[in-house]
Amino acid sequence: MTTMLVSDGSVLRPDMTVRRADVLVDRDAGEILAVGEDVGEDPDDRLDASGGLVIPGLVNAHTHVSMTLLRGYADDKPLDAWLQEDIWPAEGALQAEDIRAGADLGIVEMIRSGTTAFGDMYFEVPEIVDAVDESGMRALVGHGVVTVGKDEEVAIADFEECLDVAEEYNGAADGRVSTAVMPHSLTTVADEYLSEYTDRARESGIPLHYHANETTDEVDPIVEERGERPLAYADDRGMLGPEDFVAHGVHVDGTEIELLAERGTAVVHCPASNMKLASGIAPVQRMVDAGVTVALGTDGAASNNDLDLFDEMRDAAMVGKLATDDASAVPAERVVKMATRGGAAALGIDSGRIEAGANADLAVVDLSAPHLTPHHDLVSHLAYAASGSDVRHTVCDGEVLMRDRDVLTVDETAVVERAERRASALVERATE
Amino acid sequence: MTTMLVSDGSVLRPDMTVRRADVLVDRDAGEILAVGEDVGEDPDDRLDASGGLVIPGLVNAHTHVSMTLLRGYADDKPLDAWLQEDIWPAEGALQAEDIRAGADLGIVEMIRSGTTAFGDMYFEVPEIVDAVDESGMRALVGHGVVTVGKDEEVAIADFEECLDVAEEYNGAADGRVSTAVMPHSLTTVADEYLSEYTDRARESGIPLHYHANETTDEVDPIVEERGERPLAYADDRGMLGPEDFVAHGVHVDGTEIELLAERGTAVVHCPASNMKLASGIAPVQRMVDAGVTVALGTDGAASNNDLDLFDEMRDAAMVGKLATDDASAVPAERVVKMATRGGAAALGIDSGRIEAGANADLAVVDLSAPHLTPHHDLVSHLAYAASGSDVRHTVCDGEVLMRDRDVLTVDETAVVERAERRASALVERATE
Repeated sequence: MTTMLVSDGSVLRPDMTVRRADVLVDRDAGEILAVGEDVGEDPDDRLDASGGLVIPGLVNAHTHVSMTLLRGYADDKPLDAWLQEDIWPAEGALQAEDIRAGADLGIVEMIRSGTTAFGDMYFEVPEIVDAVDESGMRALVGHGVVTVGKDEEVAIADFEECLDVAEEYNGAADGRVSTAVMPHSLTTVADEYLSEYTDRARESGIPLHYHANETTDEVDPIVEERGERPLAYADDRGMLGPEDFVAHGVHVDGTEIELLAERGTAVVHCPASNMKLASGIAPVQRMVDAGVTVALGTDGAASNNDLDLFDEMRDAAMVGKLATDDASAVPAERVVKMATRGGAAALGIDSGRIEAGANADLAVVDLSAPHLTPHHDLVSHLAYAASGSDVRHTVCDGEVLMRDRDVLTVDETAVVERAERRASALVERATE
Repeated sequence: MTTMLVSDGSVLRPDMTVRRADVLVDRDAGEILAVGEDVGEDPDDRLDASGGLVIPGLVNAHTHVSMTLLRGYADDKPLDAWLQEDIWPAEGALQAEDIRAGADLGIVEMIRSGTTAFGDMYFEVPEIVDAVDESGMRALVGHGVVTVGKDEEVAIADFEECLDVAEEYNGAADGRVSTAVMPHSLTTVADEYLSEYTDRARESGIPLHYHANETTDEVDPIVEERGERPLAYADDRGMLGPEDFVAHGVHVDGTEIELLAERGTAVVHCPASNMKLASGIAPVQRMVDAGVTVALGTDGAASNNDLDLFDEMRDAAMVGKLATDDASAVPAERVVKMATRGGAAALGIDSGRIEAGANADLAVVDLSAPHLTPHHDLVSHLAYAASGSDVRHTVCDGEVLMRDRDVLTVDETAVVERAERRASALVERATE
């Protein structure tokens, strides 16, 4: 066993209190061995956390990582025009190498901002798996399927690819990759496929992830055609299991919140994307009060425009108060939980807590900056004042991915240059 | 004349386009001399902007800078409880040295995030002026006056102090400090004082700055008692001049928006504070459409919790879309204008534009980070993806305040240590 001691810092404990402690990590097993004051004599490696706060690695539970190539490509447009005039034509011109370049870029960005795991829905999943594997991060990945407007043959082929990659890559990257079957949403996938592929996912023991109730356009047609709410419709098809998780949940009513709580299906709140696309505000406080597991996601970089979970925590806390006219709603502790254990629960990984036995997925936040002074309340700082650039080290599965702001597992300069080059070429192809 | 060339970068021009250009600065006059490709032969100093974007120094048009000492001291509480249980007791225990320590801390934070000017309402104004003077920043400062619940003698003394400091410090710090008379708000200052001190401010040629329509509690009592909207009430007292500016403007109706536009009174939008205290969302797009000058402010650090204008731009754009159900509302260009020329107009300074003749107040944003890749649209990046930590250099009045992330005019380490020490002692006194 080789060990590493994350030493001389403070630790954010699972009960959201902060204590002076070291963290001893088993690098081979990728596990936290002990947390305390005298836990690590003679470790094989040390990571200096002095003046810093050791927090669980953040979990970005819903993104489309390769969309970093479209960061800033089209903003400030209504959803329909944004998709039809800009995003879909650009995505239509994407090549496998673009997917990889965008994944590498997003992964570097996430490592630099203390994120150690992400949930991803996109295409060319093997490219994304390779990027995850090489970077040392953890991810749940899947191939997004849209069937509406497609021939049966094409739709079926798409779903078969979705199932194939979910089966093939589950457990890849030394177990750091898991998978889900990912119908895009309840309105973009036809009914007959939802039932069939849900059943087949269950047979293979693979969870589902899909967009749900993001906009009223994803709600009204189902209510009108079927006389039931979208999540009741999903439940009828067996799509709300305890290992499934849905993105957004903006327009959910009380019956749907109850259903999510009963079924144990997690919701990934994406406040920045929901604001930027004017989709609305998810009733996060109500969901939490009902016992729903809520995680946080950045969504794709084209509707955010960054992958910094610190921004997302701040946004969730801020907009959660605005939505309820209550300054005590969605407090700092809650958003930190959402970004850590909430995300881990959604993705089905044993991360999100600094405790013996958990995955050694952590970040060390430097506390010395003027904007993090004074230290009345460090949990407040995580939610309201810190940003990704305050992260000093990032560790996933016991491996140091970033040390003193140097990303060790990915050649950052090369990734940035390649992304810039491929993004330019992509726009040329898309607008030809 | 000594000159400085901000060289080899791109420049954000007043029309919001970006061009490769150098910026030649007259350091003695604190002015921009020229912007272009071959403008500076043999300058006395050079500031390397290669790989960066030169933007106008950001303007934080409404804050209470010394409240940085209370950052994270009390969060997630309804406004009333927050003020009465936490903020007012702590402010009651503030000493002049605290005001100075908090001002230094806030100023360092602002310099580090590319802000070169701020509008400040607080107490112990001479302390704040000294901090501004030594730091090299620019500020409009004033003494906030509350009369409700006070004896006449105390109220008058407070207003006299407000007038005195406004007269004494206007033009201080080599002209980098200007002042305003600052009644706290239309509901916390009694009618008789509003009229009298507005007249006296006019006699001295000093503008007004006050909170207006931040919450419904600042609107309803005036409507009920007087049968008119708060800004009509202010206008009747001569408080809406072209050099005056108000903070918040969350709950303004159509008649008030028209009035603001007609009078030329600027509004400082504080989206983060308005969300965090659950005050509501200002109708920014409607104000802009009506021709109102809109600036951006962080408000105090206790309700934000940082002084980073990049966060504020992002928040303004995001929540502006949410408020209107329109993803095209409050676009990136608009929030960048609000944070630059909008703020400069509110504060009455000739900054906020990179153009010959303007004050040499600028920041250089590094564009090389993964989260600012690729470069489809740099204005979008300023609004949605950049943060204060991406600022490489900050220049105010021709003086370099931060070079390569080293703050040159203030001893950052000493400021952080003193703020931490004084904040701890303050809390002890406040909770005794």
